Amino acid sequence: MEKGIESIFKPHLEPKEVYKGGKNLPKESNKKIYKLSSNENPLGQSPKATEALIQAATNVAIYPDQTDIRLRETLVADFDQQLKVDQFICGNSGSEIIDMLLRAFINEGDEVIYSNPCFLPYSVFSRWYGAKLIDVRLKGTDYALDVEGILNAITPRTKVIFLTSPNNPTGTYIPKNVLEDFLDRIPKNIVIVFDEVYRHFANAEDYTSALPYVKAGHNVIAINSFSKTYGLAGLRVGYCYTTSKIANYIRQIHKPFLLPLTSLEAAIGALNDSEFVAETVKTVLEGRGFLENEFQRLGITYWPSQGNFFIIDPPIPEFEFTDFLMNEGVMVRPVSQFGAPGKVRITIGTQEANEALVKALEKIKGLSKKE
Amino acid sequence: MEKGIESIFKPHLEPKEVYKGGKNLPKESNKKIYKLSSNENPLGQSPKATEALIQAATNVAIYPDQTDIRLRETLVADFDQQLKVDQFICGNSGSEIIDMLLRAFINEGDEVIYSNPCFLPYSVFSRWYGAKLIDVRLKGTDYALDVEGILNAITPRTKVIFLTSPNNPTGTYIPKNVLEDFLDRIPKNIVIVFDEVYRHFANAEDYTSALPYVKAGHNVIAINSFSKTYGLAGLRVGYCYTTSKIANYIRQIHKPFLLPLTSLEAAIGALNDSEFVAETVKTVLEGRGFLENEFQRLGITYWPSQGNFFIIDPPIPEFEFTDFLMNEGVMVRPVSQFGAPGKVRITIGTQEANEALVKALEKIKGLSKKE
Repeated sequence: MEKGIESIFKPHLEPKEVYKGGKNLPKESNKKIYKLSSNENPLGQSPKATEALIQAATNVAIYPDQTDIRLRETLVADFDQQLKVDQFICGNSGSEIIDMLLRAFINEGDEVIYSNPCFLPYSVFSRWYGAKLIDVRLKGTDYALDVEGILNAITPRTKVIFLTSPNNPTGTYIPKNVLEDFLDRIPKNIVIVFDEVYRHFANAEDYTSALPYVKAGHNVIAINSFSKTYGLAGLRVGYCYTTSKIANYIRQIHKPFLLPLTSLEAAIGALNDSEFVAETVKTVLEGRGFLENEFQRLGITYWPSQGNFFIIDPPIPEFEFTDFLMNEGVMVRPVSQFGAPGKVRITIGTQEANEALVKALEKIKGLSKKE
Repeated sequence: MEKGIESIFKPHLEPKEVYKGGKNLPKESNKKIYKLSSNENPLGQSPKATEALIQAATNVAIYPDQTDIRLRETLVADFDQQLKVDQFICGNSGSEIIDMLLRAFINEGDEVIYSNPCFLPYSVFSRWYGAKLIDVRLKGTDYALDVEGILNAITPRTKVIFLTSPNNPTGTYIPKNVLEDFLDRIPKNIVIVFDEVYRHFANAEDYTSALPYVKAGHNVIAINSFSKTYGLAGLRVGYCYTTSKIANYIRQIHKPFLLPLTSLEAAIGALNDSEFVAETVKTVLEGRGFLENEFQRLGITYWPSQGNFFIIDPPIPEFEFTDFLMNEGVMVRPVSQFGAPGKVRITIGTQEANEALVKALEKIKGLSKKE
């Protein structure tokens, strides 16, 4: 019998776990709902981005720029000329950059190391290229990077290692000395993907972005996004920076006209909006302090966070908890799917949203409220 | 010596031919230039798309829809319910759909057949996945599909065959009987990619889109775009339709939040703008008739076209010709890169642009002007 089309389907693309992302708000609700489930910007979007976007909106009949060079030039300025224009790659979201680099580096059977709890796409996208997935879980109750565990897991087929700092969903980070020790001990034929999309919110003294290590020539690809700090989640724009050697290699699979004109202009507008970034960071840090105090007062187990979100141990079972909060007008997200079973992630919102959250939490029986 | 990072670069991703796409207009020019080089919509963009886009522009701080389902539902209506919602896949341009399906089907060493002159990304993107490229050129001076040549080129490693109708850059098409004969004779374990992004402009009696063949269950993936008929080139939105079996397989690598909110809303707006589509098609068909007459009058060798463009044999060497026209305020495109050496592609514009083109052509010495 003649073979049908399914005979050429790749076995590793058989339906399995699909990354769905956080839910959208229910469409038909009349009730005010605070969406604290997707780590979006509490202040909305950069006004300069909006302005650029509206200007671009009437000009989309023509193909956009062939390349992302204008955005990369703006990024060079944003990084105070510490990196060169050929060290950046822009795409339609940080996720697309991750997908692109996996495509560039993974052959079927290669190994990818990541550390749960973490952003689900690391494993889901790696599987698309037939990679073998190695999960070296974060250690203990403080979710520390298991440096020895990762080093022990490395084989000649290890191609990519994912690190995240601040980490989603735990809010924890990789201290500078730990990262430096790690980078010094890692073989030079492995790509380190350092996801730092929440870096603007980190204020620990020993926090570091990937910048010094990329500048020093380590094989690090730093993933960044316009979704959080700049409030452009709906536009899907992201970028990475890395060594020129790696960037120029990945750029081989960078399509012409990859970025819509709207994304390009809005991202450039957002980078020029330092006021909005400062205001966003201020709001998140204040909200972080406020919620931390409230969690303590209410006796809720939470993890200190360097991001614009917390994970907590809900005082009642996770789905009961999220349903209860939804009913109270606050949408939060269970993160079992991210390798943190039973935990719930809560985005830091405006003061109004944070207070609504606290008010809802207070209604849960059995919480030890310290007044 | 320890191996460096370049030791894991894939050999087939070494820098080679890169698809750059058509040039953008020069930025600093004060002169009015008619851009007839990238097959854009002569009327600009769908007003309903613009309206939707401006409304979306102030709402991008929140993640967009998780999936493309709203756009797919609108497509089902646009196809008069002849296809089901799970037969569509949307993406950031027709090119992204092509890239996605190659990723889903190609393993290193698999073979891809295409027919030059054709859209360059077929071969460039195929090479990214390590495919072996088989070019079965269009036949003769009328650029007919070489059915026997393709059938003879098929091996057990053939995975994907690209067909285009109307074809870019030649403007030629695959008559219904030729396509049917071809589909009847092709093995059932090969994917036929049928690129029909110019289908709205085809009016030959024996032209056919892929629709009847997808409905009949052939392994055909029909590539469509919002760049031409709907005037959304700057937004990068495209889609394909195919059998549910193939669509559901490819959907395994469809990322959540793939489409920016702006693209999603504008595309839905454009599909609801049948008036704009009708006006666009009318303008292109009238322009096609006008230019055909003028080419004949001027003795310029052209190919009858079913698209919104023509290729011609320029009366003077190609780059001299394009420079001359640019100087006269008309931008057109040499298409050697598309496998049509010496030929130039000219987009059909507004009547004003078409007349400017003719005026410029008239200035070229040696043309046999029949008055």
